[in-house]
Amino acid sequence: MALYFIGLGLYDEKDVSLRGLEAIKKCDVVYLENYTSMLSCDVKKLEEFYGKGIILAPRELVEKKAEKTILKDALSKEVAFLVIGDPMSATTHLDLRLRAEKAGIECIIIHNASVFSAVGVIGLQLYKFGRTTSIPFQEDKWHPETPYDVIKENRKNGLHTLILLDLSPDEKRFMTVNQAIEYLLSIEDKRKEKVFSNGLFCVGCARLGSLNPCIKSGKAFELLKEDFGKPMHCLIIPGKLHFAEEEALELFKIHK
Amino acid sequence: MALYFIGLGLYDEKDVSLRGLEAIKKCDVVYLENYTSMLSCDVKKLEEFYGKGIILAPRELVEKKAEKTILKDALSKEVAFLVIGDPMSATTHLDLRLRAEKAGIECIIIHNASVFSAVGVIGLQLYKFGRTTSIPFQEDKWHPETPYDVIKENRKNGLHTLILLDLSPDEKRFMTVNQAIEYLLSIEDKRKEKVFSNGLFCVGCARLGSLNPCIKSGKAFELLKEDFGKPMHCLIIPGKLHFAEEEALELFKIHK
Repeated sequence: MALYFIGLGLYDEKDVSLRGLEAIKKCDVVYLENYTSMLSCDVKKLEEFYGKGIILAPRELVEKKAEKTILKDALSKEVAFLVIGDPMSATTHLDLRLRAEKAGIECIIIHNASVFSAVGVIGLQLYKFGRTTSIPFQEDKWHPETPYDVIKENRKNGLHTLILLDLSPDEKRFMTVNQAIEYLLSIEDKRKEKVFSNGLFCVGCARLGSLNPCIKSGKAFELLKEDFGKPMHCLIIPGKLHFAEEEALELFKIHK
Repeated sequence: MALYFIGLGLYDEKDVSLRGLEAIKKCDVVYLENYTSMLSCDVKKLEEFYGKGIILAPRELVEKKAEKTILKDALSKEVAFLVIGDPMSATTHLDLRLRAEKAGIECIIIHNASVFSAVGVIGLQLYKFGRTTSIPFQEDKWHPETPYDVIKENRKNGLHTLILLDLSPDEKRFMTVNQAIEYLLSIEDKRKEKVFSNGLFCVGCARLGSLNPCIKSGKAFELLKEDFGKPMHCLIIPGKLHFAEEEALELFKIHK
């Protein structure tokens, strides 16, 4: 009678930890949260790999109907709630956990790689990242300027900025590095505070956590012309660079 | 002919990912970096589990003698370099990777859970953490005030602060939450800027990444009296709290 929050890591079925796999195998019911991220493999592959059926859990089920599904199950059974990346990186999962604790359900967390730490692969030091921000799809004329403000604040403090990009797995849509740069340039056009200009040095990434992530560093207008390929993408704006960080970013420069 | 940087996760032999385990099993030589963190299990346990001998790599070997050991091996063999946590979270590993790349050695990174993301388990939102800092053992009258300045800057910006604590695995010494609080209070005594007072609300953690981490929230003077048990410890100073974060921290309050 417990709810296991199990991180699957970032890329495919093989990123689960042995501890995580053990827990999945002993659970009676297995949910997979499928709205905050996506793996490169499909659910069938996971089902075969675990030897278990998987129930997909869209946002509405987790946020509005968990009392009748996940939490109800966990009152009498061992339930796995699978999360891509680390299971405690997003507010929506914390919320589910709080509701479970309130209902007297034991919660067990099995961590895994997350973009918040895997971003270290680009060679910027994790302790020098400031606040993280994200860019949503531009719909209904909702154009938040928060990402611009966060970059501004972090740059002022010499800190790096990790920018997470929106996705809509149901529609197989995900935001690209190129779209993110265009978005930030459009805010620059409006605000003109020289926070995100064409010539700003930044790093675009795709498929962090895979064996062959795509990492390219260069000026914004240069990255805009690059193809980063399949999801997920993210964008990083470096702050003040240590010489080892500079050297690392050299590895990924598109124009050397 | 490649150098695999493989994260072992945070707690014991079962935190490795399937991808990581597969890589270890096919490598000809296996090094374990043993100076930036420690697992709860010993090296013998890992050797039995992998069915491989492990060469311990202290800081001096990695930073000064890698050309004659790890990197030399990787020119002609498949070499695993095991790191507790995520393999790209610390500068020292990035440095080894840069030297490997310079020597023309292919580097493959296999991520895992790191304290930078696992800290999400306490219920604070990862995207609201500012710069991370660390507290070193106080030796030779070296009393850096950086941790105090980082907390000050983050609090001013409403951000959370993750404070990593020193360790010396060779001597089986590790810094406790209590020692960290004492250290910060001693800087407060000197600076008197009301950045870290006795009444400051903070969160002490031990063994993040294990199935039963110890997480306690309370005022600094209250946490000072608590026993957090075995390593590793870390300390978190919350910034401005969202209501879900407040609710989460309630779970861990020592005086409710």
